[in-house]
Amino acid sequence: MTKTQTAYDELMRMSKEMTIVHSIASVLGWDRETYMPKNGAGLRAEQLAYLSGSQHRMLSNPRVGELLAEIEADGNELTLDEAANVRELRHQYDQATKVPVELVEEITRVSVMAHQTWVEARRTSNCFIFQPHLGELIKLTREKADYLGFEDHPYDALLDQYEPGETTANVTRLFNALRTELVPLVQAIADSPVRPKTDIVHRSFPVDRQRLFGEGAAIAFGYDMAGGRLDTVTHPFCTGIGPGDVRITTRWNPNFFNEAFFGILHESGHGLYEQGLPADAFGGPVGDAIGMGIHESQSRLWENFVGRSRDYWRYFFPRVQQAFPDALADVSMEDFYFAVNAVEPSFIRVEADEVTYNLHIMVRFELEQAIISGDLAVGDIPAAWNETFERYLGIKVPEDSQGCLQDVHWSFGGFGYFPSYALGNLYGAQIFAAAKQAAPALSEQIASGNFQPLLAWLQENIYSQGSRYRTHELLARVTGQEPSHEPLMDYLHAKFGELYRLS
Amino acid sequence: MTKTQTAYDELMRMSKEMTIVHSIASVLGWDRETYMPKNGAGLRAEQLAYLSGSQHRMLSNPRVGELLAEIEADGNELTLDEAANVRELRHQYDQATKVPVELVEEITRVSVMAHQTWVEARRTSNCFIFQPHLGELIKLTREKADYLGFEDHPYDALLDQYEPGETTANVTRLFNALRTELVPLVQAIADSPVRPKTDIVHRSFPVDRQRLFGEGAAIAFGYDMAGGRLDTVTHPFCTGIGPGDVRITTRWNPNFFNEAFFGILHESGHGLYEQGLPADAFGGPVGDAIGMGIHESQSRLWENFVGRSRDYWRYFFPRVQQAFPDALADVSMEDFYFAVNAVEPSFIRVEADEVTYNLHIMVRFELEQAIISGDLAVGDIPAAWNETFERYLGIKVPEDSQGCLQDVHWSFGGFGYFPSYALGNLYGAQIFAAAKQAAPALSEQIASGNFQPLLAWLQENIYSQGSRYRTHELLARVTGQEPSHEPLMDYLHAKFGELYRLS
Repeated sequence: MTKTQTAYDELMRMSKEMTIVHSIASVLGWDRETYMPKNGAGLRAEQLAYLSGSQHRMLSNPRVGELLAEIEADGNELTLDEAANVRELRHQYDQATKVPVELVEEITRVSVMAHQTWVEARRTSNCFIFQPHLGELIKLTREKADYLGFEDHPYDALLDQYEPGETTANVTRLFNALRTELVPLVQAIADSPVRPKTDIVHRSFPVDRQRLFGEGAAIAFGYDMAGGRLDTVTHPFCTGIGPGDVRITTRWNPNFFNEAFFGILHESGHGLYEQGLPADAFGGPVGDAIGMGIHESQSRLWENFVGRSRDYWRYFFPRVQQAFPDALADVSMEDFYFAVNAVEPSFIRVEADEVTYNLHIMVRFELEQAIISGDLAVGDIPAAWNETFERYLGIKVPEDSQGCLQDVHWSFGGFGYFPSYALGNLYGAQIFAAAKQAAPALSEQIASGNFQPLLAWLQENIYSQGSRYRTHELLARVTGQEPSHEPLMDYLHAKFGELYRLS
Repeated sequence: MTKTQTAYDELMRMSKEMTIVHSIASVLGWDRETYMPKNGAGLRAEQLAYLSGSQHRMLSNPRVGELLAEIEADGNELTLDEAANVRELRHQYDQATKVPVELVEEITRVSVMAHQTWVEARRTSNCFIFQPHLGELIKLTREKADYLGFEDHPYDALLDQYEPGETTANVTRLFNALRTELVPLVQAIADSPVRPKTDIVHRSFPVDRQRLFGEGAAIAFGYDMAGGRLDTVTHPFCTGIGPGDVRITTRWNPNFFNEAFFGILHESGHGLYEQGLPADAFGGPVGDAIGMGIHESQSRLWENFVGRSRDYWRYFFPRVQQAFPDALADVSMEDFYFAVNAVEPSFIRVEADEVTYNLHIMVRFELEQAIISGDLAVGDIPAAWNETFERYLGIKVPEDSQGCLQDVHWSFGGFGYFPSYALGNLYGAQIFAAAKQAAPALSEQIASGNFQPLLAWLQENIYSQGSRYRTHELLARVTGQEPSHEPLMDYLHAKFGELYRLS
């Protein structure tokens, strides 16, 4: 065995151990949100702190740096996957070692207090009690960005944590192009005299039937229950623990069909990606998802591009009608399809429709940049939020709990995370368009409840690739283009132009 | 701070970390039996192997030995609890370091195969396929006993793993005295013309009502659902994860009342002990249970001495009748009380009644000694089992799946574990007798559904003591005597003498 190969093997053994520790923390995180008794919270915090400390110690072990340097000095003999593992471990090692441990601990310490205060601030819609903690977190996050390093904008350093290699300039360009087309579309829809009968989805939908129907829909996509499960939580999520264990969650609303059902489709989209990752590469980065944007593209693709399509309801409407005869016996497929696609500017991001959702993200992206660059003082955030929000969405924020206090992210210093949500929508549109081009029969397949060809295509082109390629390269290989707003806008114009009969 | 105090503090920091890792493994173990998807088994094995490796490395760290030696050299200044922590950590360190790592790994390796073969052997009642693996495990276990060291009998070394400080000679003395009185009692019951109407408990008991009634019974004992929960599994158990998180499990049988109900009382007894351990001592041995025997005494105390008493059913019979009117409307309290206390020699240990249960353990105790001393060859185990079983219980084993193949313990090399079950019954009787003496109103309290005084007494005298005292000393402090068979025999004679109208 060559010296490089020996070093690589040792590095991968260390990576495998870190991955196992991460997967253990995932089980504990899932349990905390699902079944942990209330009084177990204190011990759980200690357990998770121990595991994250372990992970950090393992990743920032100088031996990792030595091995990386040794391999990089003579990397010619690495295979594609080996090179990808080294590339991503280098990125993780740099992230873990550039920031002093004291600063990481300080951010954790302040986050605990900030989170508690944020919960109370949101409950009472009182920005003032959150501001001192938020101010401190912003200061520490800026220090962190300086340590991480950047070329153009400190926000680049933060973005890079969730979207390796992404830049503020590129996201700005994409979002600007998107907004230019999106704002007039939202306006045209608002001006349309055509309105969906949204009361249809606000009737009585018994939860036990919702569970059966929702699980069935996830299984129909190909989500594997032998390697997964569906549980009830307050804030739905998907946890990929590792090969053979990917769990999704939802919450139930007996008087609103969309909440649990599209939530399940969304999380099963994440779940399909996780279940499709290359199990034989588990332990190294290649066995893991490449970034939040691609992850979100898959939840959005299955939730919206498939699950909110007319094709989908051609097959599923008779079935949903049978599952909920009291609510839907007198409803037509077209009315139902329109009702689950209603567009209405609203204040809460997580409840936003397909068209307005990205505008919610742009508000946050614009503000976060100003916050991190220092152009926006913490005391001015509420006013800036309300002004930007009205400019983008055309409605006035009535109180901060429905404005700048609604999201959890800032309370743990998660600046730079939001853009991934909108990038996911763009990537999802791009990937779905490519899938359609590759399989001209896709519409008919979906309309006959056959998702296997789409899943197989995504499996081959996206899921099984893991972190082999960075996001832009993966997109270019799969779709032939760089990230673009056009496929999403083409899709939105076609779909909502028809629904709202826009000229 | 003195040098000893500094060393003690460092030792306790290490102990806390080991305890956290152990508690993490407990969450993963619980999840494996309750909610883990089937295909997650492979990853779960890797996660648990990593955690047990971590625990072993942490415990056998030479630094632990240095600190212990330093503290022991000048231990005069330690408090009672500090000394107990040092005593138990010394015991654990010696256990972890006396046996070479290679032997531990070899036992683990052979166990995996042995367990698989045992499952198949039990299913087909075919001893032969299990024998080679069992033989290898016995050989390795004898080597392990030699490394652990013993004075009289190699079995002492194995017993000591589950009952620190216990000896084969002492258990033999206790069990002989017990058997001398137990065998004639079983015979007298068999000869009695009086029989309970056992069909009563084999009627239809809807599972949803069993769940409500069983949970209510556990909560009535004082089991805290804010720091616990009840789930469904194949093989019921209780997991004490740590302060605020102690979970119990059961299995349901819609046509047999006893199975889930007394299972829940049994596990909630374990749960009450775990929930009552001193939370402020968490991290050191004092915060943990002292041994399997005391643990089992608590499950047996709540299940049998309380839950199968006439006092208990005075209060609960009208309630169980109300919960299951179809099954119990025509039943009298006395008939129900007798039915849940039916005595009948049977083949399967885990289904045995209060009277015959200990004889099942004695069969195993006798055989295990002969196996470990080398007096009994692996090929002769089935015949020896059947002969001993008939001698003790008076019935002929029809096949090995109902005989020597029924228990999982030997398949993972768990020799030395069985005696704890019977010791738990003896200790439970002794402790319950002491509780009665301390609280003359105990009968009336139980008969009015008031378990708080009993729980408070156990809390003060047993649960809050953790591992402060070794088992014998704890018993002596609480009951004024050494372990004895007399309280259990007094109880059995009185209860079953009356039920079966023995002279």
